Amino acid sequence: MKVAIIGIGLIGGSFAKDIRRLHAAATLFGVDANAANLEKAVELNLVDKPATYDDLAQMDMVIVSIPVDVLVQELPKILDAVGEGTVVFDAGSTKALVCKAVATHPKRRNFLACHPIAGTEFSGPEAAIENLYNGKTNIICEVEKTAFKLQERALQLFQEMGMRIRYMNADAHDKHIAYVSHLSHISSFMLGKTVIEKEKNERDIFDMAGSGFESTVRLAKSSPAMWTPIFEQNKANVVETLEEYIQNLQAFKKMIEEGDFKGVYDEMNNTNRIKQILNGIPLTK
Amino acid sequence: MKVAIIGIGLIGGSFAKDIRRLHAAATLFGVDANAANLEKAVELNLVDKPATYDDLAQMDMVIVSIPVDVLVQELPKILDAVGEGTVVFDAGSTKALVCKAVATHPKRRNFLACHPIAGTEFSGPEAAIENLYNGKTNIICEVEKTAFKLQERALQLFQEMGMRIRYMNADAHDKHIAYVSHLSHISSFMLGKTVIEKEKNERDIFDMAGSGFESTVRLAKSSPAMWTPIFEQNKANVVETLEEYIQNLQAFKKMIEEGDFKGVYDEMNNTNRIKQILNGIPLTK
Repeated sequence: MKVAIIGIGLIGGSFAKDIRRLHAAATLFGVDANAANLEKAVELNLVDKPATYDDLAQMDMVIVSIPVDVLVQELPKILDAVGEGTVVFDAGSTKALVCKAVATHPKRRNFLACHPIAGTEFSGPEAAIENLYNGKTNIICEVEKTAFKLQERALQLFQEMGMRIRYMNADAHDKHIAYVSHLSHISSFMLGKTVIEKEKNERDIFDMAGSGFESTVRLAKSSPAMWTPIFEQNKANVVETLEEYIQNLQAFKKMIEEGDFKGVYDEMNNTNRIKQILNGIPLTK
Repeated sequence: MKVAIIGIGLIGGSFAKDIRRLHAAATLFGVDANAANLEKAVELNLVDKPATYDDLAQMDMVIVSIPVDVLVQELPKILDAVGEGTVVFDAGSTKALVCKAVATHPKRRNFLACHPIAGTEFSGPEAAIENLYNGKTNIICEVEKTAFKLQERALQLFQEMGMRIRYMNADAHDKHIAYVSHLSHISSFMLGKTVIEKEKNERDIFDMAGSGFESTVRLAKSSPAMWTPIFEQNKANVVETLEEYIQNLQAFKKMIEEGDFKGVYDEMNNTNRIKQILNGIPLTK
């Protein structure tokens, strides 16, 4: 099996590690706009050798794991380059614009729109983790638009990697994921900003912050290059989630200001049932 | 050494575990308004036997780890009951009102106002963890108001437990801790609320949420009975942090709405330096 990975960072590199383990005979090719990343990926043995779009015609599988703004630009060119029997799938955190970018492409049936819900706040080839995807959900959109035989090849890999599959339409994906992922990132970035602005003396943060603070601002370490285009592509949904979040914060603040601590208690008590929900989420860390 | 622990949950129970390890000859007494908790604490061998305020006169050390609303009510009574040579310290997440509650108490010099920055989102005696405090900061307020010999006894224990000590005045403590702890809890509770309200189908959250969501809403599992009085006692500071947080969220939303993605990128990029700050925080999990 010949596999090309376009964008060989945390996401692409973690696919590479699992493919190496599961398919010892596979040859892995790396494509990356960043020459140093690509060199590092070869050095780490994530891929066997660099490749270009000219090599894509001979691939059985092409995994595209690049920021979503570059993804919508490159995906049509990638489909132009692949062979009739190549399956291409992405790992982007938005799905509507990605699907739209190739909706009328003559090789649309070679593409499977995917979003594996997995990752860490780190990036680059060194951040790749074996078994990152084990037990995680992979959301697949517009599955009916992909050739059945090619779907099968990708799905077999996902199954071998231990992923759970969920089918969804692209608009529903973007709406839901704004709540359970995109909003968390913004809340974390703005929490980090609020504290950094206030605590000019970093020593004070070191000394006074505990694991609770660390947990809530962990996502503020995430890559701005990856997240800016996600917020751009999912603008309408992200703005809606932010409005609701801000309203909830304002209502909570009002209860504190007005001394309604019965209300404050009830709000937290109602939200405590998040415990049961969180118990259902498979975690990396 | 005779030690009484008033409120034998996560915080008090974790003190008990370390004292057991460090002082095998110590006798530990438990006091708890909740009879089932107290029974559990004896069963788990966190304490040797139950006690009442009548027993406090014979203690060398009394640790008070109860919600801060109960703390301000009970602390004067506890000081009434202890002996001349007993050191009493608390573990409350607010310090100004706690110090005020005993400011004019005849046994003020028996009390050391403490806030060990440690914990998890769980509560109760089963949640107690050995070494929870190792490497963590313990903020001590108004140290000059405590008798020197009694300070020494408490500080020796903190040192044996591996805690770092930082001295601060109570108002400064409450202001700083609002940013690095209280705000994180509110941000997490309201994030949990926003998502629960939207995603009526919990299956969707299970399937679509990843470790990032789990991390940002972890604190929404925290005890409302513990946190409501903290927000009440630290009302002015908490409201101020919330206002700044909401302003930052609104500004970020505006940039997204207006398509200023250069600004969005810059905001996240500037906040990325939280990485270095977080590297300095000792973590339990």
